[in-house]
Amino acid sequence: MLKEAIYHRPEGAWAYPLDVNCLRIRLRAKRGDRIRCRLLHADRYSGEGDESIVDLEKTATDTLFDYYEGVIPTATRRVRYVFYLEDPMGGCWYGEKGIFNNRREAGDFQFAYICHSHLFEIPDWAYDGVVYQIFPERFYNGDPGNDPAEVEPWNKGARPKANSFYGGDLQGIIDQLSYLKELGVNLIYLTPIFKSPSNHKYDTTDYYRIDPHFGDLDTLKKLVDKAHRLGMRVMLDAVINHAGYGFFAFQDVLKNGADSKYADWFYIQEFPVVTEPVPNYETFANDVWTMPKLNMSHPEVAAYFLDMAEYWIKEAGIDGWRLDVANEVDPDFWRAFRKRVKKANPDALIVGEIWHDSGPWLQGDQFDSVMNYLFRDAVMQFFATREIGADVFDAQLAKSRMLYREQALYAMFNLLDSHDTERFLTACGGREERMRLAVLFQMTYLGMPMIYYGDEAGMDGETDPDCRRPMLWRESDRNGELFTLYQALLRIRRQHPALRRGDYRTWYVDPAAGIYGYLRRTEEDCVGVILNNGGGTQTVSLDTHLFGEAPRLHDPL
Amino acid sequence: MLKEAIYHRPEGAWAYPLDVNCLRIRLRAKRGDRIRCRLLHADRYSGEGDESIVDLEKTATDTLFDYYEGVIPTATRRVRYVFYLEDPMGGCWYGEKGIFNNRREAGDFQFAYICHSHLFEIPDWAYDGVVYQIFPERFYNGDPGNDPAEVEPWNKGARPKANSFYGGDLQGIIDQLSYLKELGVNLIYLTPIFKSPSNHKYDTTDYYRIDPHFGDLDTLKKLVDKAHRLGMRVMLDAVINHAGYGFFAFQDVLKNGADSKYADWFYIQEFPVVTEPVPNYETFANDVWTMPKLNMSHPEVAAYFLDMAEYWIKEAGIDGWRLDVANEVDPDFWRAFRKRVKKANPDALIVGEIWHDSGPWLQGDQFDSVMNYLFRDAVMQFFATREIGADVFDAQLAKSRMLYREQALYAMFNLLDSHDTERFLTACGGREERMRLAVLFQMTYLGMPMIYYGDEAGMDGETDPDCRRPMLWRESDRNGELFTLYQALLRIRRQHPALRRGDYRTWYVDPAAGIYGYLRRTEEDCVGVILNNGGGTQTVSLDTHLFGEAPRLHDPL
Repeated sequence: MLKEAIYHRPEGAWAYPLDVNCLRIRLRAKRGDRIRCRLLHADRYSGEGDESIVDLEKTATDTLFDYYEGVIPTATRRVRYVFYLEDPMGGCWYGEKGIFNNRREAGDFQFAYICHSHLFEIPDWAYDGVVYQIFPERFYNGDPGNDPAEVEPWNKGARPKANSFYGGDLQGIIDQLSYLKELGVNLIYLTPIFKSPSNHKYDTTDYYRIDPHFGDLDTLKKLVDKAHRLGMRVMLDAVINHAGYGFFAFQDVLKNGADSKYADWFYIQEFPVVTEPVPNYETFANDVWTMPKLNMSHPEVAAYFLDMAEYWIKEAGIDGWRLDVANEVDPDFWRAFRKRVKKANPDALIVGEIWHDSGPWLQGDQFDSVMNYLFRDAVMQFFATREIGADVFDAQLAKSRMLYREQALYAMFNLLDSHDTERFLTACGGREERMRLAVLFQMTYLGMPMIYYGDEAGMDGETDPDCRRPMLWRESDRNGELFTLYQALLRIRRQHPALRRGDYRTWYVDPAAGIYGYLRRTEEDCVGVILNNGGGTQTVSLDTHLFGEAPRLHDPL
Repeated sequence: MLKEAIYHRPEGAWAYPLDVNCLRIRLRAKRGDRIRCRLLHADRYSGEGDESIVDLEKTATDTLFDYYEGVIPTATRRVRYVFYLEDPMGGCWYGEKGIFNNRREAGDFQFAYICHSHLFEIPDWAYDGVVYQIFPERFYNGDPGNDPAEVEPWNKGARPKANSFYGGDLQGIIDQLSYLKELGVNLIYLTPIFKSPSNHKYDTTDYYRIDPHFGDLDTLKKLVDKAHRLGMRVMLDAVINHAGYGFFAFQDVLKNGADSKYADWFYIQEFPVVTEPVPNYETFANDVWTMPKLNMSHPEVAAYFLDMAEYWIKEAGIDGWRLDVANEVDPDFWRAFRKRVKKANPDALIVGEIWHDSGPWLQGDQFDSVMNYLFRDAVMQFFATREIGADVFDAQLAKSRMLYREQALYAMFNLLDSHDTERFLTACGGREERMRLAVLFQMTYLGMPMIYYGDEAGMDGETDPDCRRPMLWRESDRNGELFTLYQALLRIRRQHPALRRGDYRTWYVDPAAGIYGYLRRTEEDCVGVILNNGGGTQTVSLDTHLFGEAPRLHDPL
């Protein structure tokens, strides 16, 4: 076996508790090195010879590596362990000191004590979650009385510009809850709804006020209450990496300069504050003067936004927060945020916007999950553009799963697209069959499927602002077959615990033919899916021993 | 190059800020793969082509891997980066997505924003620190009036049992501060001094009271004040993984059972609480009934001990805390501990007792460093028992350095032995020349040397309790030459900034001859050390190009 490929750490996604008496262990080895991997473990104060043995199972493979996993039960919460790795050439010990032929030289990895703060629980409902993302200005205009002064016509031909308004609002969402129920989603994520001059509202003027073009506190309460009655939950978007130019504290700094008691709430480079030729304060991205960056490491700022986060949970009964630009905010704040939010509502979900490897934020002390753009990257390349084959697709998915603990994987927002990307159908070059296959995959993969409003109606669009067109509601504008597919897949997902709570195993990979198969398994249920991402009709021979019992082959669609 | 050996993560000791505009990056590759390693980096919102380039330098090698390091300067605190790795066979890109020939496929690693809580600063004085560990019951009896009822004779023949008392106390330490000053140390670490029935006092009865056999609050204040006047600092031992049986809260639980308001302060399995045949509550290690484990995840318990930690800093002016059994206590508590302690005294040092890989605790949010038992393991095997050669020794040291950020390395308590191990001289089988060489290494390595009381006097002893013999004070009992060596080495360490603040580079490794050489370098200063751990006189040819200028060879001893 290749020693340089062997990897483990007694922390992070490599060793983490499932509960106070149970530790999940992950090991990496070279792809194709056929290793029997055993784990010897004991209480860390016990002597040599007291170890129990656990066999690890190969659970995933990426381009370079195989991954093995297993579970250590422990009565005392104090664990030491060492791997014994065997291949046809012989065996070796892998412990804290490295890889050795001699057990004692290898030493033991230590998980010294499973503490309360090592635990990572996601809300139980998240396992069954299906997300629907709404950009409220563009979903439905339920109250023309609160429309902005100039709204553009809401029709299929609408091509929004960066500053267009169409009049969508919270009453519109209330009006269409039955539509969402019919579709089969159960978690509605709204992009920002607090007072702001823009249509996207990522530049907040007042974090304690619903934008008047969207409604007011009562409208939000009605929305949440009605959603709850229908068995759906509602999440809001917390934009606290930066505020809007109109935020009271920034306005105070503009007025009072260095004397403002809010001067330290931002990163001001010099006074007086100017916006031109470039802002002399830190902003979101580069020089976006409308979005001054907030100093979330400042205790007063942190306190302000912790209060805000709690307020909307308690006042409006929301079920969680999506966190904008989450990886540019102080992790210390997020730790406090999690404590405050989960105290206010232990069932609240916290999902960060991170487009990249999100390991550091998914240790159980910050977020429950992230918007899974790594999932989207793989799905885009396999289904939409067909740049990669089934083997690379499988490897990319495996690699992204192996970054995280199991808990986070089940809570992932698995998206095909969002308000920040081109529409998936557009990425497919309009080829609906490609999108249909991708949706089938999305609805049967590990984690929460996230539908961007209108995808189910066949909406297309280039990236922002074109991906934010007003929702198609007229029957004749909509793709009814696609909607039926979404409905059917979500019904199957509801029927099969394995699709919601099961593990994931690669089943069949044929890059030449474009065939990819996988299994989702619980103890009582098993679903196998075979995708033909190549062309025409193909015949495959399947190994069914991984099913608990002889499977019935059928096409529930 | 071997792709499976390449490793980097945009977190931990692999990517960490030195300040808000500077990121230190580490990469691992296969040992001996002669790679030119370049880093392309830019603001994460800038486009392709905006990258600057940094060359990484090979800084360490362990058994399997070479390590490369470099520094990324950033004006905006938002960093994306990708490695370009080149060997004679060609080049490849290494980014978040993996290793590819195509730059775009590799993607970029992201250090999205250098936040306040990513920063890790150790007190500046720690770079110059030399620690002296005192077991107060055995150091010096300065006040026979406070002796326990039965003390054993304090002489060279003393062989302590687990429950022996000798009468050492805080007044004794005050009396001998001039001795410590003469030796050349500047940080005194006392094992526990709070009220407890044992001689070691790791079973605390009262965290707010100095043990009456050691003195009282005034004695401690005198000790700290006098030490400060002499330019020395004082650290105490925080034993809060567990309390003593006599601790008021545990006594209340014994008395009131489940009704005690302290019932949740411990891990009680059932009521009433019993100690026999085995305790029905969690304890330190296995069934040590005198040491009930504290529930440090409980907010009230945490608050109690945070107050305690602050109290001794404010009341007695101590300079830091050593944390007993630190890896079995909730990390969440340690995060709060660091904030509270550093607020009370920004110059306070926090050092955990962890015998193993301590990476998770040295991210800047918990400890400044640990008692470096990985250092001791390597030094024991190379100098004391000669089980390993210079090559393995060098690899072990490198591996242990590469676990941590640079800041933690400079604050390490590099020990040869402690109150929990056999004496180093005993491990050497009494061969003083082996110990002398180990001490030379300890005094010139990266991090704080920690001297266990009496080592400098030539004391020996098997493991606990034999390593806790009363200190030898009579001139005729002491090894004067060893003391002189310690003095001389500490003087050289004071004279050379490179030995205190310089980096570390392996210089010469000859396992057959037993020769090991290394360099310590700052911009202005460079010290090279060549150790002959073989036999007799040996001749070596040295490469001196790593010195800034032509070196003068001399033996300052």
